[in-house]
Amino acid sequence: MRSYHLDSGAGLAGLTIRDHPDPVPRAGQVVVAVRAASLSFRELMIARGDYVLPVKPDVVPVSDGAGDIVSVGPGVGSRRIGERVTATLFPSWQDGPFGIEHLPQRGGSLDGMLTERAVVDEDALVPVPGHLSYEEAATLPCAAVTAWNAVTGADGLRPGQTVVTQGSGGVSLFALQFAKTLGARVIATTSGPEKAARLLGLGADEVIDYRAVPDWPARVRELTGGRGADRVIDVAGLLEQSLKAVAVAGHVACVGFVSDTAPPLDARTLFASGATVRAVAVGSRAQFLAMNRAVEVNDLHPVIDRVFPFDQAHDAYRYYASGKAFGKVVITV
Amino acid sequence: MRSYHLDSGAGLAGLTIRDHPDPVPRAGQVVVAVRAASLSFRELMIARGDYVLPVKPDVVPVSDGAGDIVSVGPGVGSRRIGERVTATLFPSWQDGPFGIEHLPQRGGSLDGMLTERAVVDEDALVPVPGHLSYEEAATLPCAAVTAWNAVTGADGLRPGQTVVTQGSGGVSLFALQFAKTLGARVIATTSGPEKAARLLGLGADEVIDYRAVPDWPARVRELTGGRGADRVIDVAGLLEQSLKAVAVAGHVACVGFVSDTAPPLDARTLFASGATVRAVAVGSRAQFLAMNRAVEVNDLHPVIDRVFPFDQAHDAYRYYASGKAFGKVVITV
Amino acid sequence: MRSYHLDSGAGLAGLTIRDHPDPVPRAGQVVVAVRAASLSFRELMIARGDYVLPVKPDVVPVSDGAGDIVSVGPGVGSRRIGERVTATLFPSWQDGPFGIEHLPQRGGSLDGMLTERAVVDEDALVPVPGHLSYEEAATLPCAAVTAWNAVTGADGLRPGQTVVTQGSGGVSLFALQFAKTLGARVIATTSGPEKAARLLGLGADEVIDYRAVPDWPARVRELTGGRGADRVIDVAGLLEQSLKAVAVAGHVACVGFVSDTAPPLDARTLFASGATVRAVAVGSRAQFLAMNRAVEVNDLHPVIDRVFPFDQAHDAYRYYASGKAFGKVVITV
Amino acid sequence: MRSYHLDSGAGLAGLTIRDHPDPVPRAGQVVVAVRAASLSFRELMIARGDYVLPVKPDVVPVSDGAGDIVSVGPGVGSRRIGERVTATLFPSWQDGPFGIEHLPQRGGSLDGMLTERAVVDEDALVPVPGHLSYEEAATLPCAAVTAWNAVTGADGLRPGQTVVTQGSGGVSLFALQFAKTLGARVIATTSGPEKAARLLGLGADEVIDYRAVPDWPARVRELTGGRGADRVIDVAGLLEQSLKAVAVAGHVACVGFVSDTAPPLDARTLFASGATVRAVAVGSRAQFLAMNRAVEVNDLHPVIDRVFPFDQAHDAYRYYASGKAFGKVVITV
Repeated sequence: MRSYHLDSGAGLAGLTIRDHPDPVPRAGQVVVAVRAASLSFRELMIARGDYVLPVKPDVVPVSDGAGDIVSVGPGVGSRRIGERVTATLFPSWQDGPFGIEHLPQRGGSLDGMLTERAVVDEDALVPVPGHLSYEEAATLPCAAVTAWNAVTGADGLRPGQTVVTQGSGGVSLFALQFAKTLGARVIATTSGPEKAARLLGLGADEVIDYRAVPDWPARVRELTGGRGADRVIDVAGLLEQSLKAVAVAGHVACVGFVSDTAPPLDARTLFASGATVRAVAVGSRAQFLAMNRAVEVNDLHPVIDRVFPFDQAHDAYRYYASGKAFGKVVITV
Repeated sequence: MRSYHLDSGAGLAGLTIRDHPDPVPRAGQVVVAVRAASLSFRELMIARGDYVLPVKPDVVPVSDGAGDIVSVGPGVGSRRIGERVTATLFPSWQDGPFGIEHLPQRGGSLDGMLTERAVVDEDALVPVPGHLSYEEAATLPCAAVTAWNAVTGADGLRPGQTVVTQGSGGVSLFALQFAKTLGARVIATTSGPEKAARLLGLGADEVIDYRAVPDWPARVRELTGGRGADRVIDVAGLLEQSLKAVAVAGHVACVGFVSDTAPPLDARTLFASGATVRAVAVGSRAQFLAMNRAVEVNDLHPVIDRVFPFDQAHDAYRYYASGKAFGKVVITV
Repeated sequence: MRSYHLDSGAGLAGLTIRDHPDPVPRAGQVVVAVRAASLSFRELMIARGDYVLPVKPDVVPVSDGAGDIVSVGPGVGSRRIGERVTATLFPSWQDGPFGIEHLPQRGGSLDGMLTERAVVDEDALVPVPGHLSYEEAATLPCAAVTAWNAVTGADGLRPGQTVVTQGSGGVSLFALQFAKTLGARVIATTSGPEKAARLLGLGADEVIDYRAVPDWPARVRELTGGRGADRVIDVAGLLEQSLKAVAVAGHVACVGFVSDTAPPLDARTLFASGATVRAVAVGSRAQFLAMNRAVEVNDLHPVIDRVFPFDQAHDAYRYYASGKAFGKVVITV
Repeated sequence: MRSYHLDSGAGLAGLTIRDHPDPVPRAGQVVVAVRAASLSFRELMIARGDYVLPVKPDVVPVSDGAGDIVSVGPGVGSRRIGERVTATLFPSWQDGPFGIEHLPQRGGSLDGMLTERAVVDEDALVPVPGHLSYEEAATLPCAAVTAWNAVTGADGLRPGQTVVTQGSGGVSLFALQFAKTLGARVIATTSGPEKAARLLGLGADEVIDYRAVPDWPARVRELTGGRGADRVIDVAGLLEQSLKAVAVAGHVACVGFVSDTAPPLDARTLFASGATVRAVAVGSRAQFLAMNRAVEVNDLHPVIDRVFPFDQAHDAYRYYASGKAFGKVVITV
């Protein structure tokens, strides 16, 4: 079986493919025949060498994937063979708050899913919702769980409240879908009329083109009668702006950095906002399972922009890095 | 102006109408020209004399109504005249948990809305959502706020979770609508295929006809893979059954008693359920306002079964008491 | 090594001791040389045959114990040998809410701690706080974790609030200690001046002798200016009384039944109370660990009434069943 | 009667005293004969002109005070005359989350307490706990309520958790006292052995002298086994450092700026921390009342450094501005 490998900071040129004997699962493990993997911003950061968490040398990259269980180790029921599964990004984070004991992560300090055969701990497995394809399921572990946590975590968004999503990356589109699913009002920022139209098609109540309206926080305030949004899903590290768009006692979910630049934040802005800023680090297996129930009950489907075959992984990375994708980029295996 | 009056326990025959001079608002008050009022189960209990809270003699009955502000007392801006409003059932309950200081209630210890002119404290006013008629808005203060609290209160129902609603009274239909709005799965109990069809039309995912399936809790367990529902909105005092239908660590919202009989509960059943039972007493003004935002954002409309004119209030009470209504019974003023 | 064994319903006469070869831990397991075990009300229920959860035939009884790790199975670091540990009652309940998947319990469907050598899953282990003896640590898994959950769970008791504890069993004394630790006011019910004095010595702010004052809920209302207690830790299934003692929007933690009789509850009482009743089923490992941090930081020590040697287990059961104990009954191994 | 007056930015020289006729309370108001007022950092900011909220010209400064009700307006029961009271800083914030409608604040956009007779809305009154002097009660509205909110708000600190307090200003000492009251472990930063000794005397479990140990966040990590503190009460705007001291999934309560410099925060630090930063804006009347119950039940007394007479208000401001005070500075009236 073949796996891609990468060293942190090696760049796209460092992404290589190698042959291996089929892995043998140990006690409590299964082997998954990966059918699809999906790219997240973390994959670019690992290639660049500026990811926030440890990355092992020669890692099999990519945190997200889905496939079928093809063999099981001691202690795992053989009935599971054939089950369609995906896997949590932080395998040891089952429930409750995140902690330093949960830091080992798939596609970073642990091998990931850009492989034909992945070894996964049984308690990291998550069944694939029945109405989703492998490609769709492969998009869930990082982006969708992050969006779910950002939207529903920490005294989550409630029906009728207003949330701001930023752009059309994976997390933002999932956040839009989840927020509409739970009856919130969504204001989506974007660039250009084409993306705006697609966001409205996904259910956004309002779209702000930040090229035409650079002071989008002021526009958010106008659209909310001066109060500001109840929640902002900040995927760009633009905390100053997000805090200007959020209501007093509102919530900014700080999801990461889709751009390379994150301007510094004046602590006075944060204090004056009266708001809360929360760093969101994906989510627990319990959150993943809860999300999947919402995905099933509401017949949600992830937005996939483009699918690449396994031997074109470099193209997939390049396309994803271009920032042109509306939604997720998937690699079939 | 004319008001209906009633003594607790006087029965429907005791419901009389009298003429009064127009009321003059005091400091902090407004006068509302009521355009519609709506009946809740509490109105029948007051007529019967078994309501759980104090009722003043000769009260103007009916907690729920909507209309226009026609005059304002000192300290209230005259710009409010003409505003379309409804009013909270517990006028002093603004936010936070309920307490004994909030017990005074409209249409009970305070005069209610079955009148042409109602005096309302300014801080009990709630603006009518723009897309609702007076008749629709009149249904909100008791039934809708109760349903909102039952569904969203106390670590509220989350997208993808399963909730059981019982029958087709006002609270149950609002609960169904709110639960679907926030992405939950709804199992509705009912009697007969006609009501079943209407519940499915409102979005129920599953319907259980408790005449055909008397052990509806067992059916709920089947439909939830043995786990039970995450939440049950109990409007009938059937706690034993609700606790058999609810999941371990689930939640039963005890909303009241639409029937006269409430069988006793074995404390062992409650303990063995591992669940929580919460008595729901309508909700605060803050909950009312939050609900209205959800109603507006999601373009929800209350389900009204029938509208009676002001001088047929007895017929309205009688029809409501028959239990035939699917949704709310309204009296226009 | 020797273990006691018992069949559900076999009574105290059915409690027998037998010799076994030393157990060999499997993957992910350890063997604990038990140094002390402790009795909870569930042990009497199992002997009587009316325990609420399944009990395997010939079970090694007693959920609670503490000791030293003496051997480890594959996958468990040998450095753990010698560690002082206790173990969770529900071994698979790590964090988050309780669920049906967590039902297997030590000393019931799984073998328990009334043995010289107990096999424990590594992820059920809980380190013994450094300042506690084995006897003290042996009292924690059932009674202390239950009390911790009852006091701090579900929007837990806050400093300055009032809680009612009932009597002087293990859960009630832990609840008293935890409530005082977090700055609450404790009203303890009891029988007789001697126990009253000991409860005051443990920090109770007020004591109500329910022999002298049978209507203790009325006395609780007097002591709280008519409002009622914010929380009642109900260990006796006396929900009618607890609901009369609790404040509107208050919380009754239903912990179980220290007596054989649990009078039925009128659902109208529950509704009229405006309160919440929550069934408390011990707690998760995360709650156990959080409790231990509180126990350490505040230098708390469990209240032990009497310690019996291993070969006097029958006497220990009999003494515990007499209801005379003030605090926990421990069996050293 | 005499009141001090101040314009925002006028400096201490601008603080003047003038005679006025006794005020007459309007409907819903009372007049309080102020017996003591207390300085908070906001008073220095107003004098300097860099306070974050609007300040009316010629304001009677100082948000915090306590005294006796000496006259009541229409609608307020005359029985209240003689009652010992203090008052909320945001008079319209009764309960629930803060909002822009609550921005009017005493001693800023509304007249404050550095006066012999203050007019207060009845629903802003808070009874003085019986065991507190006027001087002690005068310290509560800003600093104590802020500390209470910082410690107990937003999924508050729990028994056994670790909190970091900074220095020996009013908020920090209250936070220390509240944290110990609820059974937490307190690590207090300070400068110099004398203050360290006093902090230990107040119950701090550990003290870090940041002059001797400039990298106090690293020391916090050492003291917490590498995890970091569960909560940091940041009174200095040192968010970078606080985020280095806080645990993953921990909480930084951003209370304000006791110094003039607040270094910018790198959004990446916030994201990498996995933590939450919450701006704390004092608290609601409901929080004030809950705090007072805790203060009474636990017999807490505010730490007062020094008391100045009414005609030495300039000296009081100057002393407070020196930063030498250990606890609160009070002015008797």
